[in-house]
Amino acid sequence: MKPLEGIRVLDFSQIHGATFSTMLLADFGAEVIKVEKVNEGDKLRNLAPKIDDYSAYHAYLNRGKKSIAVDLKTEEGKDIIKEMVKHVDVVCENFKYGTMDKLGIGYETLSKINPKLVYASLTGYGRSGEKKERACFDNTAQAFSSMLDMTGYGGGAPITMGAQLGNLYGGMHLALGIVLAVINVRKGGEGQMIDVSASDSLFSVLEDGMVDIEFNGHHHIRNGNMSQAIAPYDTYATTDGFVSIGVSTDDQWEKFCEALGLEDLLGDPRYATNSLRGEHYLDGGLRDKIEAITMTKTKFEIEEILSARKIPCGSVCTAMEAIESEQLKHRQMVITVSDPVVGEVSMPGIVAKLSQTPGTVTKPAPVLGEDTGDLLKEIGYDDSKIAELKEASVIGTAK
Amino acid sequence: MKPLEGIRVLDFSQIHGATFSTMLLADFGAEVIKVEKVNEGDKLRNLAPKIDDYSAYHAYLNRGKKSIAVDLKTEEGKDIIKEMVKHVDVVCENFKYGTMDKLGIGYETLSKINPKLVYASLTGYGRSGEKKERACFDNTAQAFSSMLDMTGYGGGAPITMGAQLGNLYGGMHLALGIVLAVINVRKGGEGQMIDVSASDSLFSVLEDGMVDIEFNGHHHIRNGNMSQAIAPYDTYATTDGFVSIGVSTDDQWEKFCEALGLEDLLGDPRYATNSLRGEHYLDGGLRDKIEAITMTKTKFEIEEILSARKIPCGSVCTAMEAIESEQLKHRQMVITVSDPVVGEVSMPGIVAKLSQTPGTVTKPAPVLGEDTGDLLKEIGYDDSKIAELKEASVIGTAK
Repeated sequence: MKPLEGIRVLDFSQIHGATFSTMLLADFGAEVIKVEKVNEGDKLRNLAPKIDDYSAYHAYLNRGKKSIAVDLKTEEGKDIIKEMVKHVDVVCENFKYGTMDKLGIGYETLSKINPKLVYASLTGYGRSGEKKERACFDNTAQAFSSMLDMTGYGGGAPITMGAQLGNLYGGMHLALGIVLAVINVRKGGEGQMIDVSASDSLFSVLEDGMVDIEFNGHHHIRNGNMSQAIAPYDTYATTDGFVSIGVSTDDQWEKFCEALGLEDLLGDPRYATNSLRGEHYLDGGLRDKIEAITMTKTKFEIEEILSARKIPCGSVCTAMEAIESEQLKHRQMVITVSDPVVGEVSMPGIVAKLSQTPGTVTKPAPVLGEDTGDLLKEIGYDDSKIAELKEASVIGTAK
Repeated sequence: MKPLEGIRVLDFSQIHGATFSTMLLADFGAEVIKVEKVNEGDKLRNLAPKIDDYSAYHAYLNRGKKSIAVDLKTEEGKDIIKEMVKHVDVVCENFKYGTMDKLGIGYETLSKINPKLVYASLTGYGRSGEKKERACFDNTAQAFSSMLDMTGYGGGAPITMGAQLGNLYGGMHLALGIVLAVINVRKGGEGQMIDVSASDSLFSVLEDGMVDIEFNGHHHIRNGNMSQAIAPYDTYATTDGFVSIGVSTDDQWEKFCEALGLEDLLGDPRYATNSLRGEHYLDGGLRDKIEAITMTKTKFEIEEILSARKIPCGSVCTAMEAIESEQLKHRQMVITVSDPVVGEVSMPGIVAKLSQTPGTVTKPAPVLGEDTGDLLKEIGYDDSKIAELKEASVIGTAK
């Protein structure tokens, strides 16, 4: 029995962000009921990458969920939601701030119907403050939080991170918040609102950077692949790509120099301590001396040489190299799910490995509206009423 | 009453990663008992940034925790841990794989003493697979997961992200896994091992990138600040810095052009759809035309002009600009904690805003060993035994 079995989530999430949160909940046993537009469904269903005409992105983020198609702009559609809310533990959504209220099914309305309801909202800037109504993409959250300013080379432009980490990091906080609020209800407490923003999430990970600025007035300057605390800590060119290395202790420094045939550096007083190595890293030519060696070997050769000496070192893998690595295969980080539409679909596996109650994918992503009929019957709608609502396009059912 | 009140965590986390996980648990009510080296303490206590000689980084990540100082290499020290494990719900650690086993207090030993124990481990590569014993820094996890390969400009070097996102993202999964496993125990289940790695965590967020490669054989090429799906979606120079913008719908495109005085682009068939704008973005001169305008204004001017038209747009803030923004102040994302050593310490606030049982920081980071005496008494050690253990440096207490 999975930890979240018995927890029911009415999930209005669209595309990304909160869609990821409810996927995590489904992996660990929650019953997630995805609410979608009649005919159209979640926009994610049309986003690339696709297999034939089927979105593999949707197949991934909506795995393990049910689907009901309801027109939220009709009174009868809203009535369905208000009735369903009596039977769920959680409502989750990532609409723009105010959308659910405008639809007449906002937190205030729904929590009156079900005072135990946990209502979880993920937005770009949060549900308060002057920016709360602003449109936000992942890049603008990265920009505002200053994460963008911290990524890239000091002389060049700031760089957007290679994944939608504002949405995803916010999605993790939302999932954690939901589980905490569910625990609170199970202990006899009331329901509540959980308000998470992508911008807050990214800002919170500036960590020491932020503290440093607050206390010491340092303006953090993005510095490519280097660290402010450790040297050498950098990414170097090789014959066939790049390799990332970190050398923090004096013991590691000695092993590092021996491994790469750089023993002459060991006697050099400019490089005697981590702090001195940092000082003389660029101007003192240390970086160039290291890269002169790495450029004579492949990235995997460098990785093997240094890893054998317990020095942190990783080849910069392409996605395909990572996918095909023995390590990630062993970790079951690429799984396949059998989908009725397109057959076997590969997708990322489950990160948190619980030994006794592991997360699993119990079913593929739903066909649009495949659970509408069953779920409406469960809350008291009979066949003729369901047919009538379908005829009026208030609901949609799978063909 | 906070959601995690009554949950006790024996926390062996050092420096970063899992230290962040247990901070999240403490914010939401868990009693986190940090186990540290006698005299020395967690290395984090010595890491910059510092206020006078006190680590503000430690003040942040160890807020809300207790501290006991125990020498884990002595038999009497191990006995203390084995006794304490009977009285806690969770053990958390981020040592290199195998360290706790070598100390004789690994999962197998501790779970026999307390079968309800949740044992949570965060490592660079995980507790299985060929790389499990390898040393790992955040940059090497970013490299191996291929996140590094996805960040930066196609023609240039891959770029390390501006924060330790492998550790932090892994830390989020660990916190979620712990809470799920605690729920399982509360439902009558047994304890279990939670195994999370920084590399798995980062790999899992490649998302559509990974799916695309699997299905379509595309080799993802890092592309600076651009998106593969949306154009324009980029970061542009202004008179005083940079601004990130995303324009996805045709309606937004029209408003965007009007707002920036680029109406002549609206009739241009090369830019008629999102897909065409992507095709002609670089070669068709679209990027240059946009940047020619953004370079005539400040980043905040551009942000205001476009935000007023509901187009996602964010100035690339420096950390100081983010800290001082009305939005993040309103969101309470910078909080101050009163510390007995250095006075008021600023640090990031709490991301998940729970309306009824909000997270709070109840106490500053502990002085090394400040709770050793109290906690040992609680498990049956008397004053003379405590004095004896202290004399023998098996334990340390706050001076």
